[in-house]
Amino acid sequence: MSETDQGRILLSVTGFNPKRWYELLSKERAVVLEPEGARDPSIRYAVVWKQKPNLLSTLPNLRAIFSIGAGVDHLFADPGLPDVPIVRVVADNLTQYMREYIVWRVLDHHRQGAHYRGQQLRKVWHEPYQPPAGEVSVGIMGMGHLGRAAAGALVYLGFRVNGWTRTERPMEGVSCWHGRDGLPGFLAATDILVVLLPLTHETRGIVDYRLLSQLRHKNALGGAVLVNAGRGKLQRETDILRALEEGILKEASLDVFEQEPLPKDSPLWTHPNVFVTPHAAATSDPAHLVPPMLAQMDAFERGEPLTNLVDRHAGY
Amino acid sequence: MSETDQGRILLSVTGFNPKRWYELLSKERAVVLEPEGARDPSIRYAVVWKQKPNLLSTLPNLRAIFSIGAGVDHLFADPGLPDVPIVRVVADNLTQYMREYIVWRVLDHHRQGAHYRGQQLRKVWHEPYQPPAGEVSVGIMGMGHLGRAAAGALVYLGFRVNGWTRTERPMEGVSCWHGRDGLPGFLAATDILVVLLPLTHETRGIVDYRLLSQLRHKNALGGAVLVNAGRGKLQRETDILRALEEGILKEASLDVFEQEPLPKDSPLWTHPNVFVTPHAAATSDPAHLVPPMLAQMDAFERGEPLTNLVDRHAGY
Repeated sequence: MSETDQGRILLSVTGFNPKRWYELLSKERAVVLEPEGARDPSIRYAVVWKQKPNLLSTLPNLRAIFSIGAGVDHLFADPGLPDVPIVRVVADNLTQYMREYIVWRVLDHHRQGAHYRGQQLRKVWHEPYQPPAGEVSVGIMGMGHLGRAAAGALVYLGFRVNGWTRTERPMEGVSCWHGRDGLPGFLAATDILVVLLPLTHETRGIVDYRLLSQLRHKNALGGAVLVNAGRGKLQRETDILRALEEGILKEASLDVFEQEPLPKDSPLWTHPNVFVTPHAAATSDPAHLVPPMLAQMDAFERGEPLTNLVDRHAGY
Repeated sequence: MSETDQGRILLSVTGFNPKRWYELLSKERAVVLEPEGARDPSIRYAVVWKQKPNLLSTLPNLRAIFSIGAGVDHLFADPGLPDVPIVRVVADNLTQYMREYIVWRVLDHHRQGAHYRGQQLRKVWHEPYQPPAGEVSVGIMGMGHLGRAAAGALVYLGFRVNGWTRTERPMEGVSCWHGRDGLPGFLAATDILVVLLPLTHETRGIVDYRLLSQLRHKNALGGAVLVNAGRGKLQRETDILRALEEGILKEASLDVFEQEPLPKDSPLWTHPNVFVTPHAAATSDPAHLVPPMLAQMDAFERGEPLTNLVDRHAGY
C-alpha cells in the first residue's frame, strides 16, 4: 500500500446493527466489518462503538479512531486501545438534537407539564402560579460543545443559566463555576440541573444524594429538577429515588441509565415524577455523522490536522 | 379638574377578582372600581377586561381605554364602546410567556412526548424515528408581536417556519403568505399549525375542518398538529375532533376553547391526543402589566402619543 492510496476503514460496532453505517461509509472508501480485519495493513481508520477488545491493537497502520457518539467512554473499555488520535464526532445535527431535547425537558418541567396532564385527567380548570423564566436558574454540568449549545438556547429563552466545568471555561451570559471547589456554589444557585458530563473516573456516580441535596430545592418550582442526557453511570439511581421521595427533587427527566435498556424492574419506569426516554436525546443518525467523518479522513490524507480530538489523559 | 391634574382610572373587570390590579394601579393614581364611576368627569382612563356594557360611554372626559390581555375582542362586545384610542397591553413578560408556551408545545409534539409517555407506561425501550427540526414546518397564523416572537425562537431552534397574516407582513427567515388567497399555500406547507390570530368577524371559526384538512398531514410526524393559544372562538371544536378521528390531525394542544372554562362534558378533556391548558399560555400578571400601562398614561399627559393602538376598523 502506498501512502497516496485511500486508507481503508474498519467498522467495529457492538449493540446495534451497523448496516447503514457500512453502506454510507462504503460509498467513498473500502470498509472492513468486524470481526474481520485483524492485522490488515490496508486499514488506516477505525469507526467504532464499543469495539471488540484487542482488535484495534492488531492493525499495523491504524492512524486514527473515530468514535460514534459524542461520549467516548465506551472506547476506553478496550484494554488494547492503541495509542493513536481519537476523533469525537461533532455533527451539527447531533448538537441540534441534544439542544432541542434539553430545551424540551426544561420547558416541560418549568411550564408544569406533569401538573397540567394530571389536572386534565381530573377535568380541572385551574392556573397554578407560573414563575417567569427569569426567576428560574438552569445549571448545566458539562459545558462542552453540547452544553454550550443548550446554554445558548436557554439564555435566549430568558432563563438564568449557570455552568459547571472541570476546568475554568467562561461563557458570556452564563454564570460559570469550575472544579470541586466550585460545585457547592453552582448547586446552591441551581433549580433545574442538566447533566451533560463525559463519563470519566472523576465523574462516575457524581450525581448522588449528596450532590442532589445541595440543589436549590426551596424554589418557585416547588423542588429541584434533574435532567440527565449525558451518561447513565454518572448517576446513582437509588439516590435519585431517595431525593424524589424526600421532596428534594420534584421531578426528573432521564435519557440515560446505569444499565441500558433500563431493566423492567426499575422503579424509575413507574415513578409518577420521572420521565423516561430510551437514550434518544440525540439520535446518532449515520446520514448526518458519516459525511463529517469522511471529510476528516480526506483532509487528513491531504496533510491537514485532525480536529475534535479526545484528550486521552482527561478521558474525554 | 385642570388639564395638569393626574387623570383618574376606572377599573372595569368581569370574570376575575381585580384586587391586585386595584392595588398596583392605586400606587400611582386614583382608581374607581366598577360599577362606580358613571359620569365621573375626573376619570380619564379605563382599564378593562369584559367591561360592564354602556358604562364607559357615560364618562365625559375619557381619553383612552387600556385592554388587559393582548386580545381586545372582549372590548367590542360593549355596544356603547366610546370612540377613544384603545391601547393593547404589550409587556415583555407576556410576550416571553407566550413564546415559551409555543416552543414548549411545538417541541413536545415534535419530540413525541405523548408517544414516550405511552411507552413508559408499558416499560417499552424503543427509539422511534425522530425527524430533525429542519424537516418539520411550523406555520404561524397571526404574526403580530406574539407571533413574531414565537417565530424567531422556532427559527433559532432550526425549524422551518411559515407565517400567515391578513395583510402582507414579511419577516426574515420566515416564509410568509397573506390573505385568503395565500391560505392554501401556507397550509399545504405546514406540519404544525400554531394559531395566534386575533378574534374578529373575519377570523371567527376559521380553524374548521376545511382548514385543517389542507394541512400537510402526510408528513414525517405521522399527521398534522394544531396548537391554539389565540382565542377559543377561532376554532370549531367538533371539526377538530373529526380531524383527529380521521388522522388528519395527529395531536393538538389547546389553551383556549369555544366556552371557558371548558365544560366537563367536552370530549376534548379525555381525548388521548389532546393536551388541555386552562387559558394559561401567557399569564396576565398585573405586576408585569401595570407598570407599562401607568408609564403610557404618564407619557400621554406629557404630550407624547399613545403606542400599541388597536385598529378599531380591523378589530385588533
